[in-house]
Amino acid sequence: MRMAPDDIALAHALADAAGDVIRPFFRRRFTIETKADASPVTEVDRAVEAAIRQLLAAHRPDDGVIGEEYGEDRPKAERVWVIDPIDGTRAFLAGRPLFGTLIALLEAGEPVLGVIDQPIARDRWLGAKGERTTLNGAPAETRACAALAKVHIATTGPSYFKGDSWAAFERLRGECRDVLWGGDCHNYGLLASGHLDLVVEAGLKLYDFAALVPVVEGAGGRMTDWNGKPLGAESDGRVIAAGDPGLIEAAVEVLAC
Amino acid sequence: MRMAPDDIALAHALADAAGDVIRPFFRRRFTIETKADASPVTEVDRAVEAAIRQLLAAHRPDDGVIGEEYGEDRPKAERVWVIDPIDGTRAFLAGRPLFGTLIALLEAGEPVLGVIDQPIARDRWLGAKGERTTLNGAPAETRACAALAKVHIATTGPSYFKGDSWAAFERLRGECRDVLWGGDCHNYGLLASGHLDLVVEAGLKLYDFAALVPVVEGAGGRMTDWNGKPLGAESDGRVIAAGDPGLIEAAVEVLAC
Repeated sequence: MRMAPDDIALAHALADAAGDVIRPFFRRRFTIETKADASPVTEVDRAVEAAIRQLLAAHRPDDGVIGEEYGEDRPKAERVWVIDPIDGTRAFLAGRPLFGTLIALLEAGEPVLGVIDQPIARDRWLGAKGERTTLNGAPAETRACAALAKVHIATTGPSYFKGDSWAAFERLRGECRDVLWGGDCHNYGLLASGHLDLVVEAGLKLYDFAALVPVVEGAGGRMTDWNGKPLGAESDGRVIAAGDPGLIEAAVEVLAC
Repeated sequence: MRMAPDDIALAHALADAAGDVIRPFFRRRFTIETKADASPVTEVDRAVEAAIRQLLAAHRPDDGVIGEEYGEDRPKAERVWVIDPIDGTRAFLAGRPLFGTLIALLEAGEPVLGVIDQPIARDRWLGAKGERTTLNGAPAETRACAALAKVHIATTGPSYFKGDSWAAFERLRGECRDVLWGGDCHNYGLLASGHLDLVVEAGLKLYDFAALVPVVEGAGGRMTDWNGKPLGAESDGRVIAAGDPGLIEAAVEVLAC
């Protein structure tokens, strides 16, 4: 009988399977559907999640699974895999190699393992609790940044902020040195590798942020909600990722005022 | 005596030289300076432009050169090469593989040859008047899109619009199906390849847009200013790129109202 691979090896296998599904569709033409929340989805999103679920069913039949496209399976299990097959579907549709497959493992609700995989540019960040985050196997480390005035901040775009949150983001951006727009999950990987200082977004779902936390924190950074609290299933989707944990307090203050 | 390569071959050689300078610096750490207009610049921007100017001096000593970093040389010549060594310096600084080297040739002020080169993802669009645009040597073609309501629009970000132009863009975006943020010059290549329908920006300089025109138009699209007029050295930096030329009129109307 074949041994189940350990969780990190399994996470790599899941990301490999996702990339194998995605690559033949990159820059091809296919039907774009619109979901209830007006966001786009394609047959590729579903095929990727199905491939991941098939491997999880084979190797971790007792674990729960929560995915963007196929919903929840045993969501109350002690161990739950959380999948966003294609984070950044808009980028994928446009042939821009910045979307990513997000794979997280929660234990008792806490994200303990996360993968951000960009299968075209071949960037794979993997973070696991108690281990150093890696980019394609090499250690990744956030950079120090002492003050907001030196911060390079990134966010996917204004259309993702609702209500007051856009004004709050604009206030924070005004305190920073520079801003980079677009990017989806890829920005959090770049932050883990020390190329960005803050990523601040709103409207994220559990499957959008669960994988990011171990990647960012295993590289020396910190992720919280806009109140500085740890992220979990009950979070409101407003997130801060800081390469230098010392930036969280200042960011929380400017976002709140 | 060695023959001078023809213009298209020379444009490829210039892009090759630029990529050779850029790649060793990608995701490395270096000093970021701030220019008079508050935009960032690095030693890499200057080294790329210097490498291109060296080749032009050797192969086209009588042509003019206009570059973002080193200014103008014979700008009134009949033939002028227009260079942006790194369009999207912010993306370059963040390790995001969407920035590009832009190389254009103007004849009597008209862009007749353009290259958009992304040296990490290895995307090279080349357009030349009277020829079909190519992406890495394969023909590129824009897609048909009959109505704004079906348009996937892209723009680099809100911080590039000044004064009324942001409200005008937001009005246009409201008429479109979806929006993709970020991307710099790479968006125009994706439009040329039929993955986006409109790219609308403001604040572009001649070296930002000159190379884009032959790429977009050689793929079946059209580029104009926000009044629907051809782009040239005297343009105000507000540009529309449409994959389907039939969209220009509708975009001009919404931007103006």
